[in-house]
Amino acid sequence: MPDILHRIGVRTPDPSKVHEALSTVDGLAAWWTEDTKGSTEVGGTLEFRFAAGGFDMEVVESAPSRISWNVVGGPDEWIGTNIHWDLRQDGDWTVVLFKHEGWREPVEFMHHCSTKWGSYLMSLKSLAETGTGAAHPHDVRIDDWDQA
Amino acid sequence: MPDILHRIGVRTPDPSKVHEALSTVDGLAAWWTEDTKGSTEVGGTLEFRFAAGGFDMEVVESAPSRISWNVVGGPDEWIGTNIHWDLRQDGDWTVVLFKHEGWREPVEFMHHCSTKWGSYLMSLKSLAETGTGAAHPHDVRIDDWDQA
Repeated sequence: MPDILHRIGVRTPDPSKVHEALSTVDGLAAWWTEDTKGSTEVGGTLEFRFAAGGFDMEVVESAPSRISWNVVGGPDEWIGTNIHWDLRQDGDWTVVLFKHEGWREPVEFMHHCSTKWGSYLMSLKSLAETGTGAAHPHDVRIDDWDQA
Repeated sequence: MPDILHRIGVRTPDPSKVHEALSTVDGLAAWWTEDTKGSTEVGGTLEFRFAAGGFDMEVVESAPSRISWNVVGGPDEWIGTNIHWDLRQDGDWTVVLFKHEGWREPVEFMHHCSTKWGSYLMSLKSLAETGTGAAHPHDVRIDDWDQA
């Protein structure tokens, strides 16, 4: 089963910067989509909305070194997939390993989502390093499927 | 076997822009790495060099809608893997589907390469749309493994 994998390094000696960006509604709204609502507690549901639709995620795990979500609402291709964020501090860097697993087929939409995740991870890096991310609708356009 | 997948859309009515950026040494040097040498003919070898090392690719296919390379030199994890570029024109967009297949294991280096490919694809998009890419050593730094 094909997975989307990414790795970024965030230059900061403070591991809480990235963790907060992934474990609070305000943090998520600052790098992924401004229209973020819900609960970041384990068992809670997060609602992410974009011009073209959105995703609902159940929070499955929330620890300092790992955050995991299960997709419970959104496009058919996403339902039942899982998103894992593994964090570790290596000196002055917070290293983020990202995995979006459980895709049934490597469809063209998966190619789009892979590139888009990479672009949003750079927004997360920017947020944690500089205080400013590029959350939707201010996100970088990668292709003709992107909607402002 | 895990693959790296990406999709970008390049806003241009002229499909030759992206094709030239992938099928000429000058084009490749303008978005991937300035230190590019070799032959883009089928059966030829391309040599891409970066601060941290490089890759040698044998050109396996070179058609208007598909370019494929086989990795014959570089890091162990890359040897024997294949890179495919599928191009199609959708109105004012050249859609690029990218696949780097044949990775034996989803190692941490593969996560890095996935994000880095996405970033370089945005450089390719910029080159074809504006005339200016961000080839190495002017590439975007994504993590602590990136070297200028």
